[in-house]
Amino acid sequence: MKKDNKKTDKQTQEIKYRIVVDAFGGDNAPLEIVEGALLAINKHKDLEIILCGDENKIKDILKGRVERVIIEHAPDVVSNCDQPTEAIRHKKDSSLVRAFDILKEREDVIGLVSAGSTGAVLAGAIMKIGRIKGISRPALAPILPTAKDSDVVIIDSGANIDCKPINLLHFAVMGSAYYSIIYKKENPRVALLSNGAEESKGNELVKETHPLLKEAPLNFVGNREGNDFMSGDVDVMVADGFPGNALLKGTEGAVKAVVSILKGSIKAGFWSKIGALLMKRVFKDIKNRVDVQGKHAGSPFLGCKKLVVKNHGVCKRLNIAASIDQTILLYNEKLNQKIEEAINHVSSKLKAIEEEKLKVGDKA
Amino acid sequence: MKKDNKKTDKQTQEIKYRIVVDAFGGDNAPLEIVEGALLAINKHKDLEIILCGDENKIKDILKGRVERVIIEHAPDVVSNCDQPTEAIRHKKDSSLVRAFDILKEREDVIGLVSAGSTGAVLAGAIMKIGRIKGISRPALAPILPTAKDSDVVIIDSGANIDCKPINLLHFAVMGSAYYSIIYKKENPRVALLSNGAEESKGNELVKETHPLLKEAPLNFVGNREGNDFMSGDVDVMVADGFPGNALLKGTEGAVKAVVSILKGSIKAGFWSKIGALLMKRVFKDIKNRVDVQGKHAGSPFLGCKKLVVKNHGVCKRLNIAASIDQTILLYNEKLNQKIEEAINHVSSKLKAIEEEKLKVGDKA
Repeated sequence: MKKDNKKTDKQTQEIKYRIVVDAFGGDNAPLEIVEGALLAINKHKDLEIILCGDENKIKDILKGRVERVIIEHAPDVVSNCDQPTEAIRHKKDSSLVRAFDILKEREDVIGLVSAGSTGAVLAGAIMKIGRIKGISRPALAPILPTAKDSDVVIIDSGANIDCKPINLLHFAVMGSAYYSIIYKKENPRVALLSNGAEESKGNELVKETHPLLKEAPLNFVGNREGNDFMSGDVDVMVADGFPGNALLKGTEGAVKAVVSILKGSIKAGFWSKIGALLMKRVFKDIKNRVDVQGKHAGSPFLGCKKLVVKNHGVCKRLNIAASIDQTILLYNEKLNQKIEEAINHVSSKLKAIEEEKLKVGDKA
Repeated sequence: MKKDNKKTDKQTQEIKYRIVVDAFGGDNAPLEIVEGALLAINKHKDLEIILCGDENKIKDILKGRVERVIIEHAPDVVSNCDQPTEAIRHKKDSSLVRAFDILKEREDVIGLVSAGSTGAVLAGAIMKIGRIKGISRPALAPILPTAKDSDVVIIDSGANIDCKPINLLHFAVMGSAYYSIIYKKENPRVALLSNGAEESKGNELVKETHPLLKEAPLNFVGNREGNDFMSGDVDVMVADGFPGNALLKGTEGAVKAVVSILKGSIKAGFWSKIGALLMKRVFKDIKNRVDVQGKHAGSPFLGCKKLVVKNHGVCKRLNIAASIDQTILLYNEKLNQKIEEAINHVSSKLKAIEEEKLKVGDKA
């Protein structure tokens, strides 16, 4: 008994990161979520995970693997059918709300990971944790592979509909800060999604946003069409959540359709079947690069006061482990401080431009 | 000599269709355009083509193949850099404007085919030819393959930005009429592009458009996300031109990226190279199905008083020939009459609903 106590003390001293995980969010919960958390626990010896959800079901999966794992019993579940803000308000015993309460109350908990309903996670992030000063709309920035060696993020990808130019400016600043941390790349190339590369093209929102991005301290490469999204020529694609979602989901659907056409065509011929066997590694490569169930982490809600990482509903254990990795990285690299500084900088610049305009107006 | 005259007379009697072609629009003009026209001439013995453009250059390509081909000399060219309405107004000697003038002036010319600047072709269609009564915004509806055996059209794909609900209703009606003719399918499945399948999702425009589509005499299957675009579960995807363009170009870019990743991965291994050789037919299949340079026709400007078919700038001779085929089909199947009838029907229905609402208002 004494030895056990000592061990616990030693562990407590060593814990550098505490992350809370919604064990019952997503299509493959709780198994894949819990196993993903355990992968992260094995990798990071200074990490403690708090798993929120039905205690007995979690214990069944853990099978005694409890080192640096704490269970917070929360028998209820928020589903995709629940109205997000209602769920956050009233489902107090759900795994997601309990996880948010822990993130909110405990200063030593650095972040939250969930594969639950996007709307509910966003509502929880805003209602329980709050926004970074100056940012009115936090945004999701999922990662996709490109035709070259680099990846691309899109911000916003569906959480924020009918945005204003200032929201898109904030998305650009947050996306750029996020990309530069996860890919260790200074001044990532930021583009504005439009229906043509020319400055004169675009809807009203794009036309009003373009000059703001030009003035901002960003590596703004101009307006780009959807076909540039995966070309490798853009690092951060900025868009209102509606066309952003169309672009993101459209690429997912296209990749799926191509694979499906490919499979059908392979099955239709003897030699192509042999060929496909020889190319097995190639197909595995492709799958790893483009599959949402690959090794990619989820996306943080950029602009939220604490780190909240949202995984795709169909994600598996590797994604959850990657999201936990990412939470630690973003914490160490001070993502939120960087965002706050960048937003302050942009705001003062905008203010200066406005004042300059007023002065010119006075003279005229 | 006498024999020749007789032959010409006989031909003139036999001509059922006259189509005017902008021989100098597109990246591969004039060679691919002229060769495409000749393919169509060989296929349809009752077709006459009027080729607009530099006479000597066209003659060089024709090399004496002049049966049922008429050249209309127009030495100037409208480029992508020209401001569309300016070009239509002032470049009177350009191949495109001359083609529009012929389409406008000659009742016996049933349609126009061009691979030139989208903006200029749209401007020409509206300024020279005009809109079908009741339709304020003609739209482009390009065709894409799906994971199943069917194709899908998207309307609008980029010509109409910042639309109103009534425009999207018209797009749905026109897209449905168009699809049912080219695929001989009654009641094609019409979906509204949104950021979630639920009726509650969408931006303001989608929320206002959804009930209109529900009431319209269409096979409306509800809101769909971008990943359903190429799934084969939708025939006509309706969208504002901005997200529509993001979706269309995003799928193009994704297909290109997958092929590029595939190629890179194949090159990296000996066995995969052998496998790829065995799968040559499969790759050709895919290319034929998804490539814009395949056999697909261009898209007509739906809602224009006469048939104006716009090809992709990079199109080749097979596309031009397919567009001419399509023009004949749409003419025979009376596309424009069908659109006009459908729009009238929808308008009276909308009016009746409005009146009903007013009555209810009176009673309240």
